[in-house]
Amino acid sequence: MLRVVKIGGNIVDNPEKLDKFLADFASLAGDKILVHGGGKVATTISKALGIETRMIDGRRVTDAETLKVVTMVYAGVINKTIVAKLRTLGVDAIGLSGADGGFIISKRRSPVPVDYGFVGDPERVDTALARELLGRGMTIVAAPITFDAASGSLLNTNADTVASAIAVAMAEGGVEPRDDAEASAGAETELIYCFEKRGVLADVNDENSVIPRIDRKLYASLKASGAIFEGMLPKLDNAFRAIDKGVTRVVICSAEMIAASGYGGTIITL
Amino acid sequence: MLRVVKIGGNIVDNPEKLDKFLADFASLAGDKILVHGGGKVATTISKALGIETRMIDGRRVTDAETLKVVTMVYAGVINKTIVAKLRTLGVDAIGLSGADGGFIISKRRSPVPVDYGFVGDPERVDTALARELLGRGMTIVAAPITFDAASGSLLNTNADTVASAIAVAMAEGGVEPRDDAEASAGAETELIYCFEKRGVLADVNDENSVIPRIDRKLYASLKASGAIFEGMLPKLDNAFRAIDKGVTRVVICSAEMIAASGYGGTIITL
Repeated sequence: MLRVVKIGGNIVDNPEKLDKFLADFASLAGDKILVHGGGKVATTISKALGIETRMIDGRRVTDAETLKVVTMVYAGVINKTIVAKLRTLGVDAIGLSGADGGFIISKRRSPVPVDYGFVGDPERVDTALARELLGRGMTIVAAPITFDAASGSLLNTNADTVASAIAVAMAEGGVEPRDDAEASAGAETELIYCFEKRGVLADVNDENSVIPRIDRKLYASLKASGAIFEGMLPKLDNAFRAIDKGVTRVVICSAEMIAASGYGGTIITL
Repeated sequence: MLRVVKIGGNIVDNPEKLDKFLADFASLAGDKILVHGGGKVATTISKALGIETRMIDGRRVTDAETLKVVTMVYAGVINKTIVAKLRTLGVDAIGLSGADGGFIISKRRSPVPVDYGFVGDPERVDTALARELLGRGMTIVAAPITFDAASGSLLNTNADTVASAIAVAMAEGGVEPRDDAEASAGAETELIYCFEKRGVLADVNDENSVIPRIDRKLYASLKASGAIFEGMLPKLDNAFRAIDKGVTRVVICSAEMIAASGYGGTIITL
């Protein structure tokens, strides 16, 4: 089985949580790809450099200077720090941005009606490169900076979407069978979103209200009732898109939970 | 033939020079590894972040905060910008720091007599990984950030030394024969140092005094006469070390010269 695990900025920003998570991640058997988000360092550095943060409708605009900063921080210090920590834990980690080897080719979002700048969505994942690296026993650490082949530009990309795109492409492309004990059974691919809660909550104020399983029908009724709101919607949309396109299982849980068998959290099903 | 080409900060800092160099580099046939240095961006960002630059005997000390900055800048924005530009030129580029896949394992310099901080020298290059990537037709873009497996730390590393270590390891390990027209003939490896002059100058004030060929005997006499001084000495020491250890040819020239057949510049021989 291939696991694609995504961690967000809340883990990246907290050295103790990050170390704990990486130790748990290192203990997971089989093929693994880790996708990491950003965190607050990019904002700190932008401020120090006097780069104005422009927001439209609550979303950050990635201008040329901001693109440089997120490339530094996401593909540079965060990616390489995680790779170094994983290697120390015995994991043969290799860090890739979407530009490296053409791993994740994206398309810049239309500037109409709103121009968010150098931001794009994945269009193609080079599964052959990923399979070759995984086949060498390596673990890929992917930064959410992708490459727009049409314009030649790097693009800032949502890490949830990157993780979903990788999982879908690997499920479609399949993982070549390996002859060791941890060999993948065909193209079985699991996508795990680690975030700050223990799962999708029925009541956002009650950490113990984790919904163990959500299918499309339940998702529709949770949206209709307003129980699931803003921030959770794109994550769940990404999750259902992955399931629709052949990913075996999508799990939404907190980073502390991945070491436990079956993880707990919320499982997304068709 | 495998070419290992090193460019310094003077090219990295100048977008026009960098674009011109990368177009020339892209036009070179055969297997290629590009090693890039730093440039002034790291100093600018350190200043903006209020990180004090400490110098001992004219050399920068890489403390923990400075290590983060150079990792951001070298392995992040510079490395990925070069990868994106090369991809746009039709080169299947992949960027690696020394931590990625354990590509360049280094050893931290002894803190005695002078502690330069998180600085180290290469001890081992993973030629198997490099050969596999080159065998896929890829071009490796290496950032001068290496990995100290003993302590688990990233280390700031001189880019000239990184280029020399890669060339020597590839010459020793050999490049697997390929069946295409650009196949390497055995382990033939060339190391090209691009810097701001047209070669090693007999008279540092005369750009037309390039010495076409330097062997050990001439090097000894140039050192004795004082014609070759400070900055040039470590570069030439690296060059001779590479030749001693099996690199076929070492060339020292300016970045504008690599497109010309035979390059010109200074050739280092035994």
